[in-house]
Amino acid sequence: MKSLDPSLSLKSTVIECKFSLSTQIFWGHDLADELAEFCKALSPRRVLIVDSQLIDSYGHFLAEKLDALLLSIPSGEMAKTGEAQKELIETLFSHALPRDTVIIALGGGATLDMVGFTASIYLRGLPLVFVPTTLLAMVDASIGGKTAIDSPFGKNGIGTFYLPKAIFIDQKFLKTLPENERLNGIAEIAKIGLVYDASLWELVRSNPHHPDLIEKACKAKIAIVEQDFHDQSIRRILNFGHTVAHALETVSSYTMPHGLAVALGCVVEAHLSKELSGFSEGEFEEIVAFFHPFDLHLPASYNRVAFRSALLQDKKRTARSVRSTLLEKIGTAGVFSGAYCHEITQEEWKKSLDWMEKNYG
Amino acid sequence: MKSLDPSLSLKSTVIECKFSLSTQIFWGHDLADELAEFCKALSPRRVLIVDSQLIDSYGHFLAEKLDALLLSIPSGEMAKTGEAQKELIETLFSHALPRDTVIIALGGGATLDMVGFTASIYLRGLPLVFVPTTLLAMVDASIGGKTAIDSPFGKNGIGTFYLPKAIFIDQKFLKTLPENERLNGIAEIAKIGLVYDASLWELVRSNPHHPDLIEKACKAKIAIVEQDFHDQSIRRILNFGHTVAHALETVSSYTMPHGLAVALGCVVEAHLSKELSGFSEGEFEEIVAFFHPFDLHLPASYNRVAFRSALLQDKKRTARSVRSTLLEKIGTAGVFSGAYCHEITQEEWKKSLDWMEKNYG
Repeated sequence: MKSLDPSLSLKSTVIECKFSLSTQIFWGHDLADELAEFCKALSPRRVLIVDSQLIDSYGHFLAEKLDALLLSIPSGEMAKTGEAQKELIETLFSHALPRDTVIIALGGGATLDMVGFTASIYLRGLPLVFVPTTLLAMVDASIGGKTAIDSPFGKNGIGTFYLPKAIFIDQKFLKTLPENERLNGIAEIAKIGLVYDASLWELVRSNPHHPDLIEKACKAKIAIVEQDFHDQSIRRILNFGHTVAHALETVSSYTMPHGLAVALGCVVEAHLSKELSGFSEGEFEEIVAFFHPFDLHLPASYNRVAFRSALLQDKKRTARSVRSTLLEKIGTAGVFSGAYCHEITQEEWKKSLDWMEKNYG
Repeated sequence: MKSLDPSLSLKSTVIECKFSLSTQIFWGHDLADELAEFCKALSPRRVLIVDSQLIDSYGHFLAEKLDALLLSIPSGEMAKTGEAQKELIETLFSHALPRDTVIIALGGGATLDMVGFTASIYLRGLPLVFVPTTLLAMVDASIGGKTAIDSPFGKNGIGTFYLPKAIFIDQKFLKTLPENERLNGIAEIAKIGLVYDASLWELVRSNPHHPDLIEKACKAKIAIVEQDFHDQSIRRILNFGHTVAHALETVSSYTMPHGLAVALGCVVEAHLSKELSGFSEGEFEEIVAFFHPFDLHLPASYNRVAFRSALLQDKKRTARSVRSTLLEKIGTAGVFSGAYCHEITQEEWKKSLDWMEKNYG
């Protein structure tokens, strides 16, 4: 908050509200009993909301363990439409759930985003527990309190900052995770390493199956989020790769998986970093090499005009320029006077997009 | 947040996010220039959203001062429908407003509630400035960060906790305020005095036109809100009078003005306090006498069955019992082991409702 302009001589007073919100993260294998114990201690009323594709494999079993009302929502990204969100909140109201009801969300990132948003606005907020079922959701969507649904004008256009009471990271879900889903998660883990934790980057680079990766990635993301919950400064470094990734997803009409879009985004924004912020050629090549096995390529529907128009819709934009986080070296993003992102001119974009089209077209 | 149950032996870690949010309140007469200066310093993009009935009297004039896009929303409580809120947010998206756009809301409590909610969820939150135009909105809706719209199942069913950057309390709006609107505000000021500040109660009782009333009431409410922003403990004392008030508003289909419902609610909940928590007969009579000039009476549509059913919809309910804040003495609400409200049995309600019907029927 800006302080009072000294030229304003009128009377004023300040309301100062301090909070401390916390989320407890549990790690392990097969946590259903612990989840049930935690949620029963939290509230006498529980609602389990699951991705519809998980209702048979996990939904009924967990709802019984939790002694919870079981609701399902459209699978994956379909959960994030305004219509699906409206239907869910109306169902909650139709059960007249009081404000001590705990909401347990089970699914991937889209499920957690939408259920989290709904829990955050129902009676101004219900206690919330996340059970992420994909690697990407474990290290990304579940951590940090960003909730969202899509607006008619863009992905994640509507949302809140709202922390769950707990997150249960249960590795049993990873056993049946398809390989492309695993790569989605690895891309986000690599990104966290690139902007904040060189040792995490080294670990994911040397062994992308290392058992400590999830915990190490979550802890790095937590360290960032704790410094800047409302995404006003350092948290923006988590957007590395995402300016390009969101535009790629848009031109692909969201057929390009988020993790692969982030992977290609990291490569392109590393190229921007090399051109603009002194990021070394050697480290740039290290990043290109790491993502080589991901078999990255531009979506079939890609063209420069559509891509540039998608870039201009970025939430980080100011007026007509598009901003991006840049790397200084591996493990360290550029500070840029506390903005943690840099305005990229059309000419600067051109050079890196030429390179992207040449190598991934 | 409950801490880890020691019987849970699995690995866990805690995310702890601390924030300090603040709102600057400005007081004075004719603050349009100061409002414009503040908002222009806050952001290069401004949107002024006004109650449609104020668009001619203040909207065009202020939009020009602020150099802001001017939007209007349905007047009064009609702003709080899901449809009106959806229309507003879609208008904001259609202008592709970036996240540094400041939203300025001008109107009564309903306007501030709905615009505040919309600002809180657009791109996860836009900077917000409130300009309350009624006495009630100055001392109540504008202070404390509760935003809301109505759900199909109840008033204020959907909302967030979200603080404006600034509130401009401009007394010029009070010059043209109708007498019933003034009484609405006085009832809320009296309530704040009753639960927290005996000197405020004495001031409003001795001179309900005293120029210091607004500032004193706001500061008392701020002192409460700063202790418990998320309404988990002491902030609940602000609900004094409101359990009954909300039920009265419901049975009147919201034709009963909020302030008069709160006034009658204070009297009835003071009666409950006398019966249940040792509140003195003398102070009870003082409250009854204070509200005598308000000419309180039950709405024509009142009946006991409908009233009890409305009581059971209260947001503070747990399972099947209805809770109410009670007074210990004037200026002090009962603590009840930190719950700051007390479960009232059906039998206990009966006695006070009998008294209410006898005196205000």
